[in-house]
Amino acid sequence: MKRIFLVLYLSILTSLSFGQQGPTWIWYPGDFEVWLSNDMQNRRTERGTYFPPFWKMDSHYVLVEFNKEFDLPNEEQIQIKAEGIYNVKVNGKMVSGMPDKLILKKGKQKVNIKVYNQSTPPALFVSGKNVNTDKDWFVTYEDKEWIDETGKASDASGTTYSKVGYWNFNRMDQIPSQFKLPTQLQKAVYQSKLNDGVLVDFGKNTFGFLTLHNLIGKGNISIYYGESKEEALDTAKCETLDYLNIIQSNKVDSTLLNSKGFRYAFIKNSENVNFSDVSMQYEYLPVEDRGTFRSSDDELNKIWEVSKYTMELTSREFYIDGIKRDRWIWSGDAYQSYAMNYYLGFDSNTVKRTILALRGKEPTVSHINTIMDYTFYWFLSIYDYYLYTGDDEFIENIYPRMKSMMEFCLNRRNHNGFMEGLAGDWVFIDWAEGLSKKGEVSFEQLLFCRSLETMALCAEILNKPDDKLLYSNISTDLKDKFFKSYWNSEKNAFVHSLVDGKQTDNVTKYTNMFAIFFDYLNANQKDGIRDHVLLNDKVQKIMTPYMRYYELEALCVVGEKDFVMKEMKNYWGAMLKQGATTFWEEYNPSKSGKDHLSMYGRDYGKSLCHSWGAGPIYLLGKYFLGAKPTSAGYKTYDIEPYLASQEWMEGKIPTPKGEIDLFVSKNKIKVQSPIGLGTLRIKSKTLPKSNHGAFVKQDDHTYSLELKSGISYQIDYKSL
Amino acid sequence: MKRIFLVLYLSILTSLSFGQQGPTWIWYPGDFEVWLSNDMQNRRTERGTYFPPFWKMDSHYVLVEFNKEFDLPNEEQIQIKAEGIYNVKVNGKMVSGMPDKLILKKGKQKVNIKVYNQSTPPALFVSGKNVNTDKDWFVTYEDKEWIDETGKASDASGTTYSKVGYWNFNRMDQIPSQFKLPTQLQKAVYQSKLNDGVLVDFGKNTFGFLTLHNLIGKGNISIYYGESKEEALDTAKCETLDYLNIIQSNKVDSTLLNSKGFRYAFIKNSENVNFSDVSMQYEYLPVEDRGTFRSSDDELNKIWEVSKYTMELTSREFYIDGIKRDRWIWSGDAYQSYAMNYYLGFDSNTVKRTILALRGKEPTVSHINTIMDYTFYWFLSIYDYYLYTGDDEFIENIYPRMKSMMEFCLNRRNHNGFMEGLAGDWVFIDWAEGLSKKGEVSFEQLLFCRSLETMALCAEILNKPDDKLLYSNISTDLKDKFFKSYWNSEKNAFVHSLVDGKQTDNVTKYTNMFAIFFDYLNANQKDGIRDHVLLNDKVQKIMTPYMRYYELEALCVVGEKDFVMKEMKNYWGAMLKQGATTFWEEYNPSKSGKDHLSMYGRDYGKSLCHSWGAGPIYLLGKYFLGAKPTSAGYKTYDIEPYLASQEWMEGKIPTPKGEIDLFVSKNKIKVQSPIGLGTLRIKSKTLPKSNHGAFVKQDDHTYSLELKSGISYQIDYKSL
Repeated sequence: MKRIFLVLYLSILTSLSFGQQGPTWIWYPGDFEVWLSNDMQNRRTERGTYFPPFWKMDSHYVLVEFNKEFDLPNEEQIQIKAEGIYNVKVNGKMVSGMPDKLILKKGKQKVNIKVYNQSTPPALFVSGKNVNTDKDWFVTYEDKEWIDETGKASDASGTTYSKVGYWNFNRMDQIPSQFKLPTQLQKAVYQSKLNDGVLVDFGKNTFGFLTLHNLIGKGNISIYYGESKEEALDTAKCETLDYLNIIQSNKVDSTLLNSKGFRYAFIKNSENVNFSDVSMQYEYLPVEDRGTFRSSDDELNKIWEVSKYTMELTSREFYIDGIKRDRWIWSGDAYQSYAMNYYLGFDSNTVKRTILALRGKEPTVSHINTIMDYTFYWFLSIYDYYLYTGDDEFIENIYPRMKSMMEFCLNRRNHNGFMEGLAGDWVFIDWAEGLSKKGEVSFEQLLFCRSLETMALCAEILNKPDDKLLYSNISTDLKDKFFKSYWNSEKNAFVHSLVDGKQTDNVTKYTNMFAIFFDYLNANQKDGIRDHVLLNDKVQKIMTPYMRYYELEALCVVGEKDFVMKEMKNYWGAMLKQGATTFWEEYNPSKSGKDHLSMYGRDYGKSLCHSWGAGPIYLLGKYFLGAKPTSAGYKTYDIEPYLASQEWMEGKIPTPKGEIDLFVSKNKIKVQSPIGLGTLRIKSKTLPKSNHGAFVKQDDHTYSLELKSGISYQIDYKSL
Repeated sequence: MKRIFLVLYLSILTSLSFGQQGPTWIWYPGDFEVWLSNDMQNRRTERGTYFPPFWKMDSHYVLVEFNKEFDLPNEEQIQIKAEGIYNVKVNGKMVSGMPDKLILKKGKQKVNIKVYNQSTPPALFVSGKNVNTDKDWFVTYEDKEWIDETGKASDASGTTYSKVGYWNFNRMDQIPSQFKLPTQLQKAVYQSKLNDGVLVDFGKNTFGFLTLHNLIGKGNISIYYGESKEEALDTAKCETLDYLNIIQSNKVDSTLLNSKGFRYAFIKNSENVNFSDVSMQYEYLPVEDRGTFRSSDDELNKIWEVSKYTMELTSREFYIDGIKRDRWIWSGDAYQSYAMNYYLGFDSNTVKRTILALRGKEPTVSHINTIMDYTFYWFLSIYDYYLYTGDDEFIENIYPRMKSMMEFCLNRRNHNGFMEGLAGDWVFIDWAEGLSKKGEVSFEQLLFCRSLETMALCAEILNKPDDKLLYSNISTDLKDKFFKSYWNSEKNAFVHSLVDGKQTDNVTKYTNMFAIFFDYLNANQKDGIRDHVLLNDKVQKIMTPYMRYYELEALCVVGEKDFVMKEMKNYWGAMLKQGATTFWEEYNPSKSGKDHLSMYGRDYGKSLCHSWGAGPIYLLGKYFLGAKPTSAGYKTYDIEPYLASQEWMEGKIPTPKGEIDLFVSKNKIKVQSPIGLGTLRIKSKTLPKSNHGAFVKQDDHTYSLELKSGISYQIDYKSL
């Protein structure tokens, strides 16, 4: 009873302190994220062996100065806690010792606190009546506050201050460097003895720490994990395992220190070691349950649910690729996780953390994850983030790192102004057999062009006309050259690449489909691409859900939503039929049985829970429920619901301020939005009727209605 | 007895492993140095308050890959220890687990070990019969070893490998991150009760950890430190102190955790706390005793000895400025420590460590210590290091960082190609009243020019003709412009600065004296500067031993050695008369009593043990004993002894290979060198006679003799 009361009490405190703009732990922006991402990404193991990333990992600044000015109505006491040793100045005067409490006088008070910590990011928490660490504190890694021989301090005019980084560490005892994701008990659904061991099944793919109950004895335990039963039982080839050496004289419940992503665990013990039961601590990122989707189509609902669970498992400290193998942050994979997230948890903090972690720190010596396309997705992700959230604070914060990243790219252009893979650059595009990376690949130029446009847009948001002009000019030139170089009017398509300055014969889907949803094309070109590329069986098929996502998006844009629904049900539905509890890294319908499990030349190399498998969340939210912002943060937005083969569908679309609630059947639409000014656009045989406002006819069968926030619209119409 | 045996045994092991090219701990070059220098420099306190540096502190790479290829005559077992978690590959194949032992097969074996550690620098120790970590391993922070979907690894051709960093951690249990300087017991020479406390005098300035013996009770102890008795007793104003809260029921000998630089400690305790005695643990850098100086002049000998002790105290993990206050690494101060070191311990490792720590890591965003002149001294120090040691391995190692530092400087030139203080730049030059830093200061251009020449020299050493040409061209242009802009033939001097493109009237000593020993001048210009600047009482006097050092060097070069000897005895002799046990940060003969102790507007602000106070070591070694290398590493060298007011002098001058032994009286010289080809040049009334070789007449009274290594020369001459 007492304990429950305490928990309630704490959560009240937390919500109160939010309301009061209460204190939060602060750090140099990106430093906690860089540090935590290093920690997370270096937890990968392969058959018990530590498996490190192959790109540069950055570090936090070890010495940073935080400051803010206050005008206090009264004297007040503040409390100070830091991760690291620290020095406090008030109005430029050093305070003696390393005070954890301090009285600030009435009136103007400038507080500077400098924190040093080599092991973990210097972080600060100050709480008082008015003086609290919050997002509006400033920070620098170099205050240049030298004093001359007379004792006069420098003017420090060369010092660059930026706004601090922060997250949700809103209590003094929530030490940032001690951050751990929460866990909860998960029991196995099935256990059986076989092959001198125990096979434990948790019923679906999961992530966390195995617990052996009533463990006792002296000897060895081997645990072989599998996303499939085949993998767990194949002790010689399974991708992850734990070898334990047990010396335990009394029975204990022992939970492993290393987390794994798995569904099955096959456990073998030597003679003198025993345990009674196996469970696990499920480790997860708490994300608000916001976006939903339900329809008359059970298979589609299942696809959405499994996509959601795939997202749940791959949304962690950061958005990762897959739970079994890499557990790394890949920019291209994360770019899709962000987009799905906008239709699911709308968890801005995890998007920001991931963008910061991927960027890392100066100097920039390689592409993000060493992959050229992944650098470009990083740029694109920032504008998307702004469009969905309207968070210009973050654009301001990240813009200097965008500029330096773009500088890096611009310096790597070849004599034609194109991006070509230099030594050490990975031109990825997709996992696809025989895909050429040679010469000037059109896909990279397209993403590069879009990245430059993103720079111009961000420069505009931040009111930097010179930058805007600079990036606009470069992107306009590049776009022009891109069309001239790659568009082939005989093929009605962009070709894959130039080699030695000449178009190759090869046409692949990538450039063509991206050009569609980047809105780079006229109607003729779009139709040409649809017919000659997207719907052309002779063009190399896409095998990864990763690029499948973009392919289906492009088809939605060119009006092939029925086709997309069929494909979606076929492709993701087929994985469900194969028993998928989460969606896969790659799915090839022509394979069967154990062959589905292999990749990278390894029998169980394929990830069966891969973030990019969760694409239906995005497609269903954006193109079937049909909601998307048209200006930043849903200030304006469109809803164009499309009922494909379903009788009805309903869902919630999260926005920065509550959810848009939508129900669509063949003759009824209900919609209510908490935000902005929406435009509902539907096709109907007759003029639809609404309980509020009036529909306007757009063309033959298209009608639009202006949606105001807070109003519950009930609409009658007749679907075509 | 047993303990002594053990110590001997260990030292034999150490020397044996040197002989065998035994293993040593390795890391990414500069990373240990950066990490350790952060640690050291953040130990500064001011009256008990932590006092951090104001410039950017860098970090180690948290994830690095070490590798080397071997051709093994037989199978061998290796032992592996790392600071951090690690992954081992042999011939590209991952070894299971995190092995501390491993069998390598006969034949070609490529060992790659990747270590991750966020808290302290990733470091590695491997020992085997042939496979040992040593200076020839390679390291990278980014191996770019991605694999494609078929399992094929990238060619990693974009990866930059460099040679590893290392020092003297030659045993597996000498963990780099646990490095501490050694300590030894030092007893107080005097203790007396006064003012409700105990004043303890250690007889001379010292550095270390105070020990309170038989400490018991519950209450407070306050310790006020002083380099002077006045400071220790002035509890309200002394610069360093410790406040202790004691809860101790049994008597213990308690040693403080924080080191201090001091001579006196004034200790006050509250009623219920007692201790019986006070001693200290003297903390020091072990440096070989190599350079010596002795003469018939006791005062001069004392000046040399006190200089040596000043160097001993300020040579620590790195060369620091002073022991009481900053305890930071300042490039300008260190530049002099290096030079003194070449005539004292010839401790190359500490020079290298300090140069690496000062440089820090990319990106370069400020001048070193934020001071423009200090960046230039850093360049100069590298060429000096090469000249004295001949260590081209280090030049190769540091050259990329020199290039990027120079890039930073070149990008900061103004429209005239001159360096002018930009926002946040500190133009220091010297502590001197009213010294103008406005406009284009001639002193900075001169150092800049010399730095560019250093770049060209290093490019030549490393056989990089393009770089050599680039830097030579810029330096030649700059030198030309420097003479045209600043030389004033009416004043027979360089003026201090240009403001708005026009020469200011001001003539200061700095530029003029540096131009002399940079050998930028013709004989007329030299004479002009000597008469109109150096020996001109109307020109602002230099008050710091820091610039005094260069002033006296310039006077030596223009043939004023008698004058210099007089000045040296006057200036440093006067500090001795004031009771100095170490030399000071600043000495102004016109001050008296307590006024000598103040600086920076604080009563005890002045450091009484400052590295730049030890200049006589350098002046006596280079201009009176008169030995200096003329090509790298004493391959060739000059000895031009000059007996000023002394009857005789003798000394040892360290070289990379033993010491040059020299005795000089008015009619006898004895000299023996272990290295290179020397030229002894002396003034004599008649042709000097040598037991080996023959003197050659150079001009009226100057004769030279070729010195071969290993021969004991006995020379008779008649001094002028």
